[in-house]
Formats: sequence, structure tokens, C-alpha cells
Amino acid sequence: MPIYLRGLMLTSEQGRKSMSSRNLADFVGVNPWQIRKDFSYFGDFGTRGVGYNIEKLTREIKRILKLDVVQKTALVGVGNLGSAILAYPDFGIYGFDIAAAFDVNPKKVGRKIKNITIEDVSKLRTLKKRKIKLAIMAIPRQSAQETADTLVKAGVRGILNFSPCHLVVPNKVKVITIDIAMDLARLPYYMPAS
Amino acid sequence: MPIYLRGLMLTSEQGRKSMSSRNLADFVGVNPWQIRKDFSYFGDFGTRGVGYNIEKLTREIKRILKLDVVQKTALVGVGNLGSAILAYPDFGIYGFDIAAAFDVNPKKVGRKIKNITIEDVSKLRTLKKRKIKLAIMAIPRQSAQETADTLVKAGVRGILNFSPCHLVVPNKVKVITIDIAMDLARLPYYMPAS
Repeated sequence: MPIYLRGLMLTSEQGRKSMSSRNLADFVGVNPWQIRKDFSYFGDFGTRGVGYNIEKLTREIKRILKLDVVQKTALVGVGNLGSAILAYPDFGIYGFDIAAAFDVNPKKVGRKIKNITIEDVSKLRTLKKRKIKLAIMAIPRQSAQETADTLVKAGVRGILNFSPCHLVVPNKVKVITIDIAMDLARLPYYMPAS
Repeated sequence: MPIYLRGLMLTSEQGRKSMSSRNLADFVGVNPWQIRKDFSYFGDFGTRGVGYNIEKLTREIKRILKLDVVQKTALVGVGNLGSAILAYPDFGIYGFDIAAAFDVNPKKVGRKIKNITIEDVSKLRTLKKRKIKLAIMAIPRQSAQETADTLVKAGVRGILNFSPCHLVVPNKVKVITIDIAMDLARLPYYMPAS
């Protein structure tokens, strides 16, 4: 679903109003029949010969994925990776607003990046009051679990974790871990021997 | 499999020689029966009451994933994300060696990071001669497809792509795309309403 959303939004940026399942399929790299099957689950958004109404379909997918309200997000760790995340262009199109950034380094605290003033990690406990329930962790593995515990205590319910480790959190919290080296490690298996 | 590998290697760093399926399960966050099932596919590495021999199992998983030889890897794009990737600690444990880095920015070309001298992207065509078949792309979306084409022509067979877009490549090339915003977009769906 998020893949379709990206395809629809990029197409919409090009000024188009509708899109066939074949066009969308080429764009995101799946089969047209897969798209028709996926979309059929939640009603009919296509017109034969015309295709899908991009605006309506985008709105519907956003609603299903709970991306139809702005989600305030905190970034923990403003190193190279954290800075890259702050500069990442696409959070806005999915309805995310990086509303706060934190670091342990006193030299970074107080600096401003993209209108966000970096705060000390001790201020993480203010997230509950600020109604921030999503966090992105871009910190070393050594402090990952401790930081996750702090975030959970501060009311965070979703964590996108870039530390290469498994985080233990209560059931009510959802963690998605992105382990760059592990993703790279999946490649050789699929590469032809040549 | 890569998740088990990480678990085994982190445990091995702690000086342990064997590990039960339960220990490994806790470590990586899956069920013990799932681990026993997965491992049973490729022979028997465990001894009841003693557990798995970490060294033997690590070697076997590396062989299956084709990680048992050092894989030279090129990095394209040395911005914030590229720099974070260069500093990433875990590539080595999976057998990856980032052997070259490229950027379009003339100010960056010639600079040295972690013993790697940044080269101009026009030098990407030398990858074939240097037997580099893996590449990590950390560049803006606008130049992603063009760069992928260049990499494929230079003999690259596996691409880890951080540009949020679908790359069109020949069948002989495997692409894994990491779209950070899209991964974040998966979180709200799983978060409780509370």
C-alpha cells in the first residue's frame, strides 16, 4: 500500500488526474493484476478505460494507513544519518512532520536545522505533553535499548529504528528496524554467479 | 537468515561458543520453534541440551547467503547519508568491504574518508576492471535511474538503493530499495488508537 501511495503521489505531481492499473504497475514495479486485486479489497476506485481517480484513491489509501492526519515525529540522534533524515524530502507527502530533534552532544544542542532546534535527550520526557507518538532513532546500538525505554515511557507508540539490534518494547508499541548492513547482506544471494 | 547471522555474531563477540534456540530466539525476537524449523532445512547444527555451535552455524549461514567471500562494494553519493553509511560499523561482519566512493561534487572528489578517496562519478565505469559488483546508491531521486544505468553498464549486479523510487534494471541485476519515509509510513497503521 505505501508503495502505491508513493506512485500515485509522484504521478499526481506530474499533473495527472487518473491512472490505469498498468501505468501504476509500471511505475511501482508490480503486476497490474496484483494492483487490481489489492484495490478491489476496499471498493471500486477505477473506471474501465479511464483508470483510477488519483485523488480519490490517494485519499482512501491514506485513510486506510492512518496517514490522513498529520503525525508529529521526533528524531533522536542528529549525526550524519539523523541529518540525512532531516533533509529527506518525502516525509511530508506521507503526512509526517518532524517536529523535534534530540541529541546527547552538548555542542549540537541549541543548533537549528531546518527550523528545528536540537534539544538535549533529557527533554525526551516532554514528548507526551507535546503529543508526539512517533520517533525515529538514529543512534549507536549501545544506547538504543535505553533510548527506546525512555521513548516508551514518554508515550511514543511507534519507533523507526536504525540501530542494528532487536529492541524489546511492550506490545502496545510498534518498532520497525532498518538494518542497512543486513539489507545489503540480502543482495549476494540473489546475484547471478556469472 | 541475515537476522540469525547478526544474532550469532553479536553473541560470538561476547565470547560464547554455543547458543540454544531459545537464547537466539530472545536475541533476535522470533519464536524458538521458528528457528529450529529454519535451521532444520539445511542440516543439523544443534545438540540437545547444548545448543547450536555458533562458529559452525555462522559459517554455514554465510555460505548459504553467499557471504563467505569478501564482497567489494562501491558507494555512490557521499552526502549525509553516504557519510553515515561509510561510518556504519556492521558491513565488515557480513563480509562487505566498501572499496570505493563516488560523488558528483568536485569539492568532495579527492577527499579521504576512512581510507577511501572519493572519486568523480565519471570513474564509475572503472568498476568492472576493479571487480566491484555491488553498489550502494545514496543520491537524490532525480539522478537515480541514470546512475543505476551507469552501474549496470559497469558490471554491477546488486544495488542497495536509498532513493525513494522504483529503478528499472535488467533481470540479471537485483535491486533492494530502502525508502525511509515509506518505512515510517507503515508505523501508524499498527499503532493503537488510544
